[in-house]
Amino acid sequence: MSAPDPRLSINQATIKYADLETALRVTADAGVQSIGLWREPVHEVGLDTATRMLADSGLRFSSHCRGGFFTLPAGAEREEALADNRRAIDETAALAAAGAEGSTAVLVLVAGGLQPGSRDLIGARERVRDAIGELAPYAQSAGVTLAIEPLHPMFASDRCVVTTLGQALDIAADFDAAVVGAAVDTFHIWWDPQVLEQIARAGREGRIATYQVCDWQTPLPADVLLSRYYMGDGVIDFGSLTQAVVATGYDRDIEVEIFNADIWADDPATVVARTAASFTATVSPHLA
Amino acid sequence: MSAPDPRLSINQATIKYADLETALRVTADAGVQSIGLWREPVHEVGLDTATRMLADSGLRFSSHCRGGFFTLPAGAEREEALADNRRAIDETAALAAAGAEGSTAVLVLVAGGLQPGSRDLIGARERVRDAIGELAPYAQSAGVTLAIEPLHPMFASDRCVVTTLGQALDIAADFDAAVVGAAVDTFHIWWDPQVLEQIARAGREGRIATYQVCDWQTPLPADVLLSRYYMGDGVIDFGSLTQAVVATGYDRDIEVEIFNADIWADDPATVVARTAASFTATVSPHLA
Repeated sequence: MSAPDPRLSINQATIKYADLETALRVTADAGVQSIGLWREPVHEVGLDTATRMLADSGLRFSSHCRGGFFTLPAGAEREEALADNRRAIDETAALAAAGAEGSTAVLVLVAGGLQPGSRDLIGARERVRDAIGELAPYAQSAGVTLAIEPLHPMFASDRCVVTTLGQALDIAADFDAAVVGAAVDTFHIWWDPQVLEQIARAGREGRIATYQVCDWQTPLPADVLLSRYYMGDGVIDFGSLTQAVVATGYDRDIEVEIFNADIWADDPATVVARTAASFTATVSPHLA
Repeated sequence: MSAPDPRLSINQATIKYADLETALRVTADAGVQSIGLWREPVHEVGLDTATRMLADSGLRFSSHCRGGFFTLPAGAEREEALADNRRAIDETAALAAAGAEGSTAVLVLVAGGLQPGSRDLIGARERVRDAIGELAPYAQSAGVTLAIEPLHPMFASDRCVVTTLGQALDIAADFDAAVVGAAVDTFHIWWDPQVLEQIARAGREGRIATYQVCDWQTPLPADVLLSRYYMGDGVIDFGSLTQAVVATGYDRDIEVEIFNADIWADDPATVVARTAASFTATVSPHLA
């Protein structure tokens, strides 16, 4: 088997049940050069240990998942959410500093859904903007880029009121591009009639904080959160999307983040190998 | 119980298992003044009988569901789909003529999904435009308005490559507004950050062919096609959406179309009564 693409990064959620040690090991052993981490497995070992383990792995660090959950109304819960986001910013900075050269200090933000009983989508979106405004100075001083991630509209009510790349960019526009950008994830935005023009816009505005790939397939499983697949197993055209991202000059790592019960049940080393092969077949041909 | 709103129309899919005779009867008996029909129950009795039954019911006819399925490549199957759409146009004209005064000759179009094995979303969308171009003259001579219905993006791959109201209006823009418009269905577009401006645009361009309402709730059921609810049982803000539609001058019937296994299993007369009550509570307060 050929070596994995040097720009491939394994997002840890793809091998959800691997602890940090295992995730780092199987990723490095496969010849993959980069990894994106999640907060929970980092917390399991503690941040200091996690940064040492990451440094020892020789891997680059491509992003931290995740902050956000910004739709709470004013009050103690919201203040705690903002405090937790500041901790996530600190973690991101520490991990990026510990990763190999070329690591990026990117914290992915999932905005949050409507509060129970609320139908105020517009108000919830304003609270997202306000929360990012509160966090931006902290992120800037930590050297961290906040990546607003639009989620697929099927998650609009319960997970993320930000549903399109254009909307993420509209929110980001109030802030410095080095501090607030967007996550471009094929799974969430492939269906958007404006996707190619919004990717180009994101590039022009310097806002592509991370490019993430995985595939979409129907019928959707009973839990639609788990409806992600290896690239090539679904209907997404990784050619046009990747070319659009490359055309903006984006030259950093590309993460694969797959939520899928069958893939999670599989051996992590096998999953990393399949992910790398799938990336080589579908994404690599379109990289400059 | 107060009388149903005079602008309420029961889309027959809400009482899916009622045959045409039952659907007309329970709708009229409830004091509802209008109905939207589906092709299959009309075909069961034949168009001539269906038009007589509709005329005898005293109900207005608000729309016919549905044409479309336009993403087939050139060939016999596509030609047959177009021929079937011409038959649907004829049915729409006949039913609208048979309905009570104020009936509207509107045929709802669901574009169709990607063909098996295809990842060419852009090409599929072009075929939708081409197919509407082929049907428009026929619809015009029949006095029928084709309503392009954007479906929620969770259906983009398998049912409908048209995912936003803005995209539907972009396609419609090539044609006379009396002939090609859009279906504004709250369930499909409530999540769209551009929804209010696109409703306003649809009004300015004379393209609101039909306004349909039902609610969105999570978690989604295993079959996401059936994730529609009575208005008020979910998270959609019918105030802002209805006010936006009313502000355009739209003054015709408003259909309720609910796909929901529990509601389908219920007694049709009960469903019509609950639909009317739900409409009165959530939509009526926002009508001029």
